[in-house]
Amino acid sequence: MTPIITLTTDFGHHDWFVGVMKGVICQIHPQARIVDICHEIPPGDIKAGAFSLLSSFAFFPQGTVHIAVIDPGVGSERSPIAVKTENFLFVAPDNGVLAWALTKEKVESIHRLDNPKYFLGERSRTFHGRDVFAPVGAYLSKGTAIEELGLEQKELISFPWPKTELLKHGIKGEILYFDRFGNGITNIPEKAVTGWELHGAALTNDPNNYFPIVEYYQAVPEQKPLGVFGATGFFEIAINGGSAEKNLNISIGSQVAIIFSS
Amino acid sequence: MTPIITLTTDFGHHDWFVGVMKGVICQIHPQARIVDICHEIPPGDIKAGAFSLLSSFAFFPQGTVHIAVIDPGVGSERSPIAVKTENFLFVAPDNGVLAWALTKEKVESIHRLDNPKYFLGERSRTFHGRDVFAPVGAYLSKGTAIEELGLEQKELISFPWPKTELLKHGIKGEILYFDRFGNGITNIPEKAVTGWELHGAALTNDPNNYFPIVEYYQAVPEQKPLGVFGATGFFEIAINGGSAEKNLNISIGSQVAIIFSS
Amino acid sequence: MTPIITLTTDFGHHDWFVGVMKGVICQIHPQARIVDICHEIPPGDIKAGAFSLLSSFAFFPQGTVHIAVIDPGVGSERSPIAVKTENFLFVAPDNGVLAWALTKEKVESIHRLDNPKYFLGERSRTFHGRDVFAPVGAYLSKGTAIEELGLEQKELISFPWPKTELLKHGIKGEILYFDRFGNGITNIPEKAVTGWELHGAALTNDPNNYFPIVEYYQAVPEQKPLGVFGATGFFEIAINGGSAEKNLNISIGSQVAIIFSS
Repeated sequence: MTPIITLTTDFGHHDWFVGVMKGVICQIHPQARIVDICHEIPPGDIKAGAFSLLSSFAFFPQGTVHIAVIDPGVGSERSPIAVKTENFLFVAPDNGVLAWALTKEKVESIHRLDNPKYFLGERSRTFHGRDVFAPVGAYLSKGTAIEELGLEQKELISFPWPKTELLKHGIKGEILYFDRFGNGITNIPEKAVTGWELHGAALTNDPNNYFPIVEYYQAVPEQKPLGVFGATGFFEIAINGGSAEKNLNISIGSQVAIIFSS
Repeated sequence: MTPIITLTTDFGHHDWFVGVMKGVICQIHPQARIVDICHEIPPGDIKAGAFSLLSSFAFFPQGTVHIAVIDPGVGSERSPIAVKTENFLFVAPDNGVLAWALTKEKVESIHRLDNPKYFLGERSRTFHGRDVFAPVGAYLSKGTAIEELGLEQKELISFPWPKTELLKHGIKGEILYFDRFGNGITNIPEKAVTGWELHGAALTNDPNNYFPIVEYYQAVPEQKPLGVFGATGFFEIAINGGSAEKNLNISIGSQVAIIFSS
Repeated sequence: MTPIITLTTDFGHHDWFVGVMKGVICQIHPQARIVDICHEIPPGDIKAGAFSLLSSFAFFPQGTVHIAVIDPGVGSERSPIAVKTENFLFVAPDNGVLAWALTKEKVESIHRLDNPKYFLGERSRTFHGRDVFAPVGAYLSKGTAIEELGLEQKELISFPWPKTELLKHGIKGEILYFDRFGNGITNIPEKAVTGWELHGAALTNDPNNYFPIVEYYQAVPEQKPLGVFGATGFFEIAINGGSAEKNLNISIGSQVAIIFSS
């Protein structure tokens, strides 16, 4: 099986940053296959990175090494870490970017990246993607034991998954992420509403906006809003052929309620 | 020969969508090489996707599987299909996105993607790129026979290639596509003007804009407009060092005439 | 060792241009591994391309073929060339885009790309990335001798690296490049200030903007400006959590002074 290394960063495509990480990986482990998950995480937006990883990591083969570099604290006291789970390896700064993906995996061990033997020569202060995370990910995919990398630690910096709230006739959640199409993805999982008869959805801050809940985007007229359980398994607010982010009065954190039948 | 799978989508780079498609392909066919053709097709713009495929598919090795996911009707009644041609395999929604590429290929058979054995577990309603097109493309590149995928159909949804019009002293066409540089690519093929002495080009909606037809961009002064037969084989309106899209009064569908000598 | 070909272009991600280059490479040398360095060089910005290559080429394995296509003069009299250095091969237009990378490498020979045997069929006038640079890079990575490609030439078109100026109590340089985060990278190398006690940095055009020089971005409060020696080895002007490009009165060429202790 070809070993796979994925990359999730906020480095964008404007510069050579991701290319250089790949060059470093190729030098250490030429047989590794590198797959880009996403490089357009908004700069420093750890939660957007956490949500992207949550939505993607499990679709890769067992044994994949997932490198995530959303690292506004690069060079400061935050630790770089590696995490071994039942099915995958993760390499990232210890700042919460792994928090949501790891709720879906059995964590086996967490190690700090202390051992300069696995870094790229002398570490820069501002580009640990190149100097720490890429080489460590390459060594892990090549078979280096996680224990070699540094001291074990028991906990990770984390932030809680925002809880949904059961209402008398519904369930309330919030928007966690906007995708490229302007669809607002919430924290309300499809399984939370299984068995209920759904009446529609509303924005708490704008209750006149009442959306039908449908099976796919084109089930409502062009440019009309809708709710749909999307491919992440969560409820989304969307506009058929348009952007909910741009055309509705919503942003990250806006509350959304799904109304059940009484 | 390494089997190649190409991806053309409107998923952009903002999210994990393309990365997850690659994860799915890697799980099914780890030896396949995945090449991105383009992911920045404007959301839902089937004709831009059709033009991108037309301009690119033939530059890949025989046997390449081309996956195209510009799919505004995802989840609705439009069919996902696979098409076998003399040289390639195509996987896409049956919405016209393959129409222009297939004018260049001998179509051997068309099959609907009905057989859930080749899907990724349970299909979501909104992300058939991940759940249908990526796995089917991976199975095809691995050697699965197209007949296995579902019922044969004889026709595809299509839209005609816009025809050029011969004038008394020229030929008239229209702008089909703007590229990253703002060059407006028309439907006038170089071979339509072979043997004629070309005098220049003009916009039908703005006849004061009369452009010289030259061999390359820098043959006119900086920031001046020009016409050129571009690398797609079609006539283009461009500005040397600038964007024709931004600086001329043109858009998709604008008419352009090439004037011959009398 | 897997042969590697890197791509640095101003083709962006909007179209099929890079994808088609990869298709051409796959046809000629299916075993080559293609790594994107950067495709978002501003259109025609040869210096931005030169800086990107300078910052990235050395992180790839020895023998890597670096293809750079920032080519505003495509089709005109500028020559396409290949350069063999002690560690790498480069393929590019002879317009200066290799100038800064080659200051770091021992050049062994320079050959014009004259031999149509190594082109893709008939050359277009506007897309030598597809028709010249991609196929030549693929043949070189496959082992074709550089002498086969065309006549040797002794010199390259170049532009000088902008010199820094020693002041009575400091050193003055200029901004060469803005990265995705809006950090302004200057031409002042870290080694130029080794052993000095640094007091801070100032913009020549705006001396009230006096920045502390720190070890990493978060060493100053959120949204405050700073100077830092970045991962390229050069001094950078940045804002913690923000964009120096957008929020300070600076652009490419703005002068920056580092003040030493007296």
